[in-house]
Formats: sequence, C-alpha cells, structure tokens
Amino acid sequence: MKPVTLSILCLLSAALSAADLALPAPRKSGGMTLAEALNTRHTVRRFAERQVTLPELSAVLWMANGVNRPDGKRTAPSARNRQEIMIYVTTADGTYLYDAPAHALKEVTKTDLRAAAGGFPAPCYLILVADTRKQTQRDFALIDSGYVSQNIYLAARSLGLGTCAMARIADRDTLRRELALGENLLLLVHPLGTPAK
Amino acid sequence: MKPVTLSILCLLSAALSAADLALPAPRKSGGMTLAEALNTRHTVRRFAERQVTLPELSAVLWMANGVNRPDGKRTAPSARNRQEIMIYVTTADGTYLYDAPAHALKEVTKTDLRAAAGGFPAPCYLILVADTRKQTQRDFALIDSGYVSQNIYLAARSLGLGTCAMARIADRDTLRRELALGENLLLLVHPLGTPAK
Repeated sequence: MKPVTLSILCLLSAALSAADLALPAPRKSGGMTLAEALNTRHTVRRFAERQVTLPELSAVLWMANGVNRPDGKRTAPSARNRQEIMIYVTTADGTYLYDAPAHALKEVTKTDLRAAAGGFPAPCYLILVADTRKQTQRDFALIDSGYVSQNIYLAARSLGLGTCAMARIADRDTLRRELALGENLLLLVHPLGTPAK
Repeated sequence: MKPVTLSILCLLSAALSAADLALPAPRKSGGMTLAEALNTRHTVRRFAERQVTLPELSAVLWMANGVNRPDGKRTAPSARNRQEIMIYVTTADGTYLYDAPAHALKEVTKTDLRAAAGGFPAPCYLILVADTRKQTQRDFALIDSGYVSQNIYLAARSLGLGTCAMARIADRDTLRRELALGENLLLLVHPLGTPAK
C-alpha cells in the first residue's frame, strides 16, 4: 500500500470537517502472530523521519483501545469497564483525541505538542490520559494505562513500527493546558515511528 | 497434544526436585494473530473443570513475562527495566513462583491458595506481586502490572483459555502470609481456565 501521510489525509478530509478525521477501518485479522509480537517486542527510542501513515495510526489506535464488541467493550480491559483511558495523538499537523466508538480522530488543537510530550524526536506521539470522571481510583487508572500501553507496544511491533512508554513527560504544564486536562491524569506518552536503522 | 496435567508432571519431576518444576519450552511463533487475539479478547469469570495443562501454563507464563532476549529482557516492559512483577501460580497441587530466566516453577508452598486469591472457582490462579526491592515507586509497579496482566489476557485468549484480572482479592492476609510477601505489593489475581460453556 502506498503510504498516505496524515498531512495528505487532512487535506482530503478538510471538505468534510475541519475538526475531525475519519480513520480507515482497522484490520482485525491477519498480520503478525501474538507469540511473534511478544518474542520480538522491545523498546525503541530512535526513529526514522518517515511519517506514520493514517492506516498505521488506525491500526495502532484500534489495537490500543478500540471497540472490539457490539456492546462497545474494548481491546484493553478497564477496571469495572470504566473505559477511562483516553489517547491523544500529536503530530506536526496538530493534536487529536481518539474517539474509539467512532474510530475517528477529533481535533483538539492545531498545535504540535510533540516537544511537550517527550524528548525524543518522533513523527508522532500518543498521550495516555485517565478521565477521572469515569475512574476515581488512581490505582485502577494506572493499571488500566498499562493495558493500553502494552497494546501500543505490541501493535507497533506487529506493524514494523517502534515505540516506548515514558512516564517522564517533557512539559506537563503545556500538555495539561493545551489538552485542557482539568482533573484528568496525564499518565504516559508513547513516541511512535519507524525504528531508526 | 495429549493434555498433561500439572499433577502428572509433578509426579514425573519429583525425582529431579521436590521443589521445582521445569516448564516445557514455550512456542515463540505460530498460533493466533495479535489482531485476532485483540478482536476476540474478553473477560471470562466462569470456568470449566478441565485442568490447565503444563504446556498451556508454560505458554501463558512466557507470554506474560518471560525472557524474550539474550540479555534477559522480557515480553512485558517495566519502568527502567526493573522487572519487578512476579507471578505466583496456585493450583490444587500447591503454589509456585515463576522463575522467568529458568522458565521454571519454584515451589513456594504445598498449600492450594486459590480460595484466598479469588471468589471464582478456577483450576488455577496467577497472582501478580511487585518486588519493592526492585521497584520502589508504587505508580510504576501498578502500570507494570497492567503490562503483564494484558499479556495474560491475550495469551489466554490465543490458547482458547479465559481469564479476568481482579484487584479485589478474597483473603489478602492469607496470601501475604503464605507467600511471605513482606513489603512486596499484592496487586492483581487472574483465575485461568477453560471458559465454561
């Protein structure tokens, strides 16, 4: 498949909505086996300049915390099914919130927040936040972020991408303000891209 | 493969060591794809009486937090690679600690601790504990337990088994005493078995 960058898709979708970005349907079968993904999983901290394509982003987000059942349940479990872990995506084109039921990206700001998220240059960062209105217990939010984070590791690996989870966030104040996080918990960031050779 | 129960393997291995139990080598390729495991993942709380076989237990433990690289790194990431999440296995035959580098089960007690772990009858429970000598930050231990717990969900699913993660533990005092946990954190339990029809 010819790579389709987020920038190009943004232009194509602009006629429909300036704010939201439909994601292509994720593949729910085929690809790497679970055993192979686990056997070759490792942390990647250096990335090539190549952009993450929208089909890749679609696959990672669905595997990370997408809807996998008609009742709206997810690929990642959550304590008491509170589904409190939100995933923001920030790229050179702006910052979006993953809407799992719609499998779409909702624009949050046109600001590129990658430098605020982490210190590694990467084409894209995923930012994991717990919605404290849905989950009031911090311990559960932390465990639940681990579920989503491991799905991101495995999804990236299965697609030939790389990632790492970081709790040390470069500029928490900027992220909290730009994402209007309020009482929500800023937990982990994941740079995502093609591993540098 | 003919099912080999833990009981039978215990007898076979008794000549080698009364305390430790070698696990068969896990399969590191083949099996269910990651996408299919994620697409069909769900919580299972009712189990058939069928025992979990030793090859199944070997596969689940390796996928959960086994060694996947020559440098000893794991299928589950951990903050600063502290590898603090320990997995105890309790069955009708007794209770063991998973030794990931040796891929073996070390006997902890001959006591069946399943009822202390959780309220659901299941042939086996996995008990996730954080070693606070390796990881002093509780937040990281919680996130790291989520990594291992998601691996258990996906491993179980890929093998046709079922599981659920529970932070509500039936009898913490008994588990803490029998496992001699000291300052270590008792985080999650996972009943594991064949889903009831």
